[in-house]
Amino acid sequence: MKHVTIVGATGAVGAELLAILADRGVDASRLRLFASSRSAGRRVDHPGGSIVVESADETALRDAFAWSDVVYLAANGRVSRRLAPIAVAASCTVIDHSSAFRGDPGCPLVVCGVNDEVLDGFEGPGVIANPNCSTIIALAAIAPLRRLGRLVRLTVCTYQVISGAGAEAMVELEAQARAWASGHALPTTRLGRQGIFNVFNHDSEVDPAGVNLEERKLEIESRRILAQPELRVSSTCVRVPVMRAHSEAIHVEFDGPVDPTEARTILSEAPGLELVDAPEDRRFPEPIHATGRDDVLVGRIRRDPGVPDGRGLALFAVGDQLRKGAALNAVQIAEAIESRGR
Amino acid sequence: MKHVTIVGATGAVGAELLAILADRGVDASRLRLFASSRSAGRRVDHPGGSIVVESADETALRDAFAWSDVVYLAANGRVSRRLAPIAVAASCTVIDHSSAFRGDPGCPLVVCGVNDEVLDGFEGPGVIANPNCSTIIALAAIAPLRRLGRLVRLTVCTYQVISGAGAEAMVELEAQARAWASGHALPTTRLGRQGIFNVFNHDSEVDPAGVNLEERKLEIESRRILAQPELRVSSTCVRVPVMRAHSEAIHVEFDGPVDPTEARTILSEAPGLELVDAPEDRRFPEPIHATGRDDVLVGRIRRDPGVPDGRGLALFAVGDQLRKGAALNAVQIAEAIESRGR
Repeated sequence: MKHVTIVGATGAVGAELLAILADRGVDASRLRLFASSRSAGRRVDHPGGSIVVESADETALRDAFAWSDVVYLAANGRVSRRLAPIAVAASCTVIDHSSAFRGDPGCPLVVCGVNDEVLDGFEGPGVIANPNCSTIIALAAIAPLRRLGRLVRLTVCTYQVISGAGAEAMVELEAQARAWASGHALPTTRLGRQGIFNVFNHDSEVDPAGVNLEERKLEIESRRILAQPELRVSSTCVRVPVMRAHSEAIHVEFDGPVDPTEARTILSEAPGLELVDAPEDRRFPEPIHATGRDDVLVGRIRRDPGVPDGRGLALFAVGDQLRKGAALNAVQIAEAIESRGR
Repeated sequence: MKHVTIVGATGAVGAELLAILADRGVDASRLRLFASSRSAGRRVDHPGGSIVVESADETALRDAFAWSDVVYLAANGRVSRRLAPIAVAASCTVIDHSSAFRGDPGCPLVVCGVNDEVLDGFEGPGVIANPNCSTIIALAAIAPLRRLGRLVRLTVCTYQVISGAGAEAMVELEAQARAWASGHALPTTRLGRQGIFNVFNHDSEVDPAGVNLEERKLEIESRRILAQPELRVSSTCVRVPVMRAHSEAIHVEFDGPVDPTEARTILSEAPGLELVDAPEDRRFPEPIHATGRDDVLVGRIRRDPGVPDGRGLALFAVGDQLRKGAALNAVQIAEAIESRGR
């Protein structure tokens, strides 16, 4: 039985990691949880007894890494860059939620169900990078369609939840709704703007080419995960006032004609996806129905009339950005490594 | 001075038409307002005296049409099909907000600022069709870019306000926010679902090909307005919990390389548009800033990295769906016809 450390255990992803591991029967004696000194000392619930969150100071972390087999890093890129080498030196498998190692050719970048095969070459100990949430959800929905033909281009427009500043941003969105309902001024400390009854372009950094970091991640990570450096990726990443689960309008071009009916059959049978595509009832994927779910919901599957020769498909995918978009995928990576006997 | 009749005067578009005409100095003595018997008898505010809304029975309408020069039809397709021929027979210029005449080759389909020239051939009396809101906003933003090259393909993903059931849907969205804040069950009579903290695919009818009517309008109307029957149009139309102003993520392909800097200059100078594109301050178009505005806001102007040879641009456009997306464009059509002496 493996020993597991979570760094960033009190954040949105950390809490979800803990819940998923608890669901899978990992008991408290096999877990050590770390957070910044602000959250240290807090007890978090766990079946069979709560766990005290430890302060992420280096001595305690080194001790935990020496005891651990798997380390989940769910803090930020700076923390990951500092701690990953220490954990690897202590022979841990590190699964990193930040973008720090996603471009590192020595670190597999994995969406389970999409490119698990890259783990065959992973000897460990080492770092496996968990992709960005919007990339994971898009590729989970699209990857099974590779049976229909080679992907040539993806166009992805996102409807992403307000979680840029983590759990506190979601709390502020709720506070904005309450303030609006009671006629008070909206609190904007975290979001820096009105989130309720508004949409705004993704708050990540915009590069000199005018592309924001979230869009760039979709482009670069998709190519690497699909092992298609020539794949063309267009995207616009936008935040919407939703608590949980990212939605994505996806237009896909193939190298030859594809049949939407066949696409629907493939997606309905793909593990990790749930087909929600009932035009007669106007039932399509919605974020409130994907919240807390492991499956990514897919629907609106249709021929894209804007692509010649029947080479285009369009679909709408919605996935919980903290489950498959983050924690669930990370746990699946750890399980895939364990199943390979490493 | 023209005499004007508005049918559907108490709806969201009708109210906006009235406000715009009032702003332009059209006084109450030159206006007759009609609505269903449910709203008839209501007085609506107008500078210099309120106006009584008349019941839309045929005798009263025929009387109004005989007196009118311009008739705005802002009810629904069935009402438009019934009343437009009567108004035209009475020598009126009819500007129709429904989709009833948008495909009729005898009726110009006009976005002012985009294809006004088709009005040169309009002899009147007759019907001019006002395009669908999302088409108007997309084309207002894109059309000036035709100076850079021929448009080959548009991909439009929308973030549309909840107004499918008109003003009452917006009232229900507000009621849902209040119910959520006070912990009560959400009212869903109009929307049929949770709108607050959710997004859902456009509620228009889905055709056998899986394309919804809103997406089909974008495709068919764009081709007609741009006079490019070969234009390729991909779209996904989605509703978001916003009160007013549609947002659209637009990816455009041209027949040759285009320069994003040149695109920005063109859009910054185009009448009817306001450039909001300040990456350094993360200031881009947002629906709360377009509400009640005549200009369509454009920003996020960048090269689309998913289109080869520099032939792609991406941008984000936000426009008030009741102003340029409906009433303002209709009034501009009437003014364009008047300026042509008809």
